[in-house]
Amino acid sequence: MNKIVLLTGFEPFGGESLNPSWEAARRLDGVELAGARVHARQLPCEFGAALAALRWELDALRPTLAVAVGQAGGRAELSLERVAINIDDARIPDNAGRQPIDRPIVAGGPAAYFSTLPIKAQTAALRRAGIPAAVSQSAGTFVCNHVFYGLMHALAGGPARGGFIHIPYLPEQAAAHPGAPSMSLDTISAGLTLALETALTATTDIAETGGTTH
Amino acid sequence: MNKIVLLTGFEPFGGESLNPSWEAARRLDGVELAGARVHARQLPCEFGAALAALRWELDALRPTLAVAVGQAGGRAELSLERVAINIDDARIPDNAGRQPIDRPIVAGGPAAYFSTLPIKAQTAALRRAGIPAAVSQSAGTFVCNHVFYGLMHALAGGPARGGFIHIPYLPEQAAAHPGAPSMSLDTISAGLTLALETALTATTDIAETGGTTH
Amino acid sequence: MNKIVLLTGFEPFGGESLNPSWEAARRLDGVELAGARVHARQLPCEFGAALAALRWELDALRPTLAVAVGQAGGRAELSLERVAINIDDARIPDNAGRQPIDRPIVAGGPAAYFSTLPIKAQTAALRRAGIPAAVSQSAGTFVCNHVFYGLMHALAGGPARGGFIHIPYLPEQAAAHPGAPSMSLDTISAGLTLALETALTATTDIAETGGTTH
Amino acid sequence: MNKIVLLTGFEPFGGESLNPSWEAARRLDGVELAGARVHARQLPCEFGAALAALRWELDALRPTLAVAVGQAGGRAELSLERVAINIDDARIPDNAGRQPIDRPIVAGGPAAYFSTLPIKAQTAALRRAGIPAAVSQSAGTFVCNHVFYGLMHALAGGPARGGFIHIPYLPEQAAAHPGAPSMSLDTISAGLTLALETALTATTDIAETGGTTH
Repeated sequence: MNKIVLLTGFEPFGGESLNPSWEAARRLDGVELAGARVHARQLPCEFGAALAALRWELDALRPTLAVAVGQAGGRAELSLERVAINIDDARIPDNAGRQPIDRPIVAGGPAAYFSTLPIKAQTAALRRAGIPAAVSQSAGTFVCNHVFYGLMHALAGGPARGGFIHIPYLPEQAAAHPGAPSMSLDTISAGLTLALETALTATTDIAETGGTTH
Repeated sequence: MNKIVLLTGFEPFGGESLNPSWEAARRLDGVELAGARVHARQLPCEFGAALAALRWELDALRPTLAVAVGQAGGRAELSLERVAINIDDARIPDNAGRQPIDRPIVAGGPAAYFSTLPIKAQTAALRRAGIPAAVSQSAGTFVCNHVFYGLMHALAGGPARGGFIHIPYLPEQAAAHPGAPSMSLDTISAGLTLALETALTATTDIAETGGTTH
Repeated sequence: MNKIVLLTGFEPFGGESLNPSWEAARRLDGVELAGARVHARQLPCEFGAALAALRWELDALRPTLAVAVGQAGGRAELSLERVAINIDDARIPDNAGRQPIDRPIVAGGPAAYFSTLPIKAQTAALRRAGIPAAVSQSAGTFVCNHVFYGLMHALAGGPARGGFIHIPYLPEQAAAHPGAPSMSLDTISAGLTLALETALTATTDIAETGGTTH
Repeated sequence: MNKIVLLTGFEPFGGESLNPSWEAARRLDGVELAGARVHARQLPCEFGAALAALRWELDALRPTLAVAVGQAGGRAELSLERVAINIDDARIPDNAGRQPIDRPIVAGGPAAYFSTLPIKAQTAALRRAGIPAAVSQSAGTFVCNHVFYGLMHALAGGPARGGFIHIPYLPEQAAAHPGAPSMSLDTISAGLTLALETALTATTDIAETGGTTH
C-alpha cells in the first residue's frame, strides 16, 4: 500500500449550506481501494484559491490518481466529465465575490484537456451496479471547470491520472429547489467508490459511445 | 389501535423488473403510525383488475385512510396528486395487453375527484424534512389515475380519506434510463411514512400554494 | 353564414408586455372558417373578472363554438387541454393582485369538466400540417384553468362546444427567458385556424391515444 | 465588395427529410451583408467527407468569415457554440454508416479550438432583436463538432474568423417529435443574418457572461 488517491470536494456555494461533493469525499477519507489510500481534501469555491489549494495538495501527496468532485444542481446522474476548457466565465460570483468573464485559466495554456480517467468504463461499471451515470461533454465555465482544467494542467506530462465528476443535489437540497433531481449520499458515495476503483484497476478505457449529436 | 391504513403499490410494468411503489409500500406493511396500522397490498398493473383488487381490500380492511402509490418514471420528487379524472387513455398497453382510449373509468361517474389527503400540509412537511415533494395537477391517464379515480369513487360519501402519491424511479431503474432522475428506497419510504403520518394527524389542510400557471 | 365562433385571448400578465394568446386571437377576428365567423375578444387576466367578461360575450354572441386561448410560457407546442378542474390555486397574483389558494371556481360545481372539442382529431390534424401539438392533461390552476372551467360550466347542457388551447411564448418573449421554447405568431395563428376548422367540421373525435402514464 | 462569407448547412440525417441548417443557409446564398457576399454550401452528414468538402470550399472561396450551421433537435434557441473538441464519439451512425468512438478528428491536433466569432455580442444582438439565443458550451461529439473542429483547425493562424451555430428543429420536424421545441425558418434566417452581420462588424467581443456553473 503506497498508492495515493487525492479526492477533492468543494465548500458550499450559491446559497447552499452544504456541498454534496465534500460530504461524499469526506466519507471516503482514509479508505483503502484497490491497494490505494484515499485522501479527501476540501477546496474553496473561489477562482484562483481553489487551484492554489489543489496544487499544494498535489505537491504534498504525489497521488497516483486525482479526482475532483463538484455539485451540479439540476443534473440527475453522476457525470463523468470528458473535457476541461481554458476559460472562466462566471454566471454568478464565486465565494470571494469574483466573477471573471471570458478569461483564460492558464494564459497561453492549451484550449482544453481531456480527462485521463476511463470515463466509459466508469459509466458502464456504475450503470451495471445500478447507479445512474453518464459521460458529460461540458463541466461548465465556473469554479468546477477551473479546478478540472488546473488539475489536468498540473498532471500533464506526468504519470498520474485525473479527472472530474459532477454529482447531483442531495435530497435535502432538492427539497428547496422544486423540480430538481437529487441523489442520496449513500448512492453518491457508493458511486464515487466504484468510479475510483475502476480508475485504479482499468488499464485502458472501453469503446462504448458516450457521445451526443449536439 | 384499531385504525387501519391501506397502502397499495403496483406490480412492475413497462419492461421494468420491479416497481418502486410496491418496494416502498411493502416496507411499511405492519408498521404503526400515529395510532394506526399500515396494511400494504400489491395491485396488478391492469385496467379493471387493479380496481377490483382495490375494492376487495377496501371491503376487507375498512381503512380510515387509503393511499395508492405508483411509479412516475421521469419525475424527480414525491408527487402529491391533486385530482383523478374519469378517463382511461393508455399510451402503452397494460400488463394484460389492454390499451383503452378515451373510455370512462366509471360510466356516468363524476368527471373528477379531488384527493382528500392534506396535500399541501404533506408537501410542506416533506420539504421541511428534506424530502423533495410537490403537488401535481395530473396523475396521467393510465392505470395510476384509473386506481386513483376508482379509489376516490369508492370512498365518496364515506368518512375515510384517500389519495394518490407518485414516486420517482429507484436509482437501479434510472441507471438504465440515461438522464432520468431517481430517489433511493430509503428516502421514498421515509417520505411515505411522513406523508401518512401527516394525513393521520392533520385535521385540515394548510393554505399554501401548490398551483401552476399552466 | 350564421354560425359564430367566440375566440378569446388574454391581456398580458406576469411582467410580459404582450400576450401571444391575444395577438393570435385578434388576427383571426372577423375571419370566416367552415361557414362560421370568428369573433375575437380579449379577457382580463383576473380571477372573477375574466369569467364575467366571458359570460357577457357568450350571452351576446350565442356562439356555436367557444375556444379560449392562453399563454403557457415554457411549453413547446400547442396544447389541446383535456380537462378543467374546479379549483383556483394561484402561484402568482393575478393582474388585480389577487392570489386565491384552493378555492372552488363554482361553489358546488362538479370537480371537473372535459373539453368538448375533438382534441385528438385536432392534435392529429395539426401534426399532419406540420404544427407541433399535443393533448395536455392539465391546464394548471391559474386564470387559464379558471376561464376554461367557467366556460365549460356555462356551456354545460347546451349544444355549443368549447375548450381551451394553451400556446407557447412568442420568440420575442422567449428571447428574455433563456432556454424557453417559442413559436412564431404565424405558426400559432395557422394552428388555431386549423384547430377551429377541425372543431367545426369533425362530428366525432378520433380514437388515438393522447394519454400519459403519469 | 470583395469580402466573402462561407455559410454551410448539412444534408438531412437521423431519419429527417430535411435539415433546417441547409434550409436556412440556402436562403442566404448570394445575399450581401455589411459589404460581404454570402456563399451557401451544403455539407454531407459524414465524418471525413464533411470536412473534405469544407476544406475544398475554404480553398476555393478564401472567405473572410466562415460559419457552419447544424441542427440541434431538442434545443429551443440559436446556440452560439463556444468550443470544438478534438474527438469523434458517435451515438448514432452518420449518413455513410460510420460510427467512430473516441477517435481524434486531427491526430496530434490541439484538444480544442475556441470559436473566433464574437459569440457574446451575437447573443446580445439576437436577444435585443427578439430572437432566442444563447452561448453553448458543447457542440456535442457528432458530425457538427467534427466540422466545427475541422473548420477552426483549417483557419488556425490565418486572418479569417469562424465558428458554429446550432439551430432548433423546424415546426414541421417538431410535429413528429412530441415535446420538442422548434423555430420557424423565418426566425432562424433572420437570426443567422444578424449573427453574420454582427461577426462582420464587431471588432471585439463584449464582456457579458454566457457561462454555466456546470
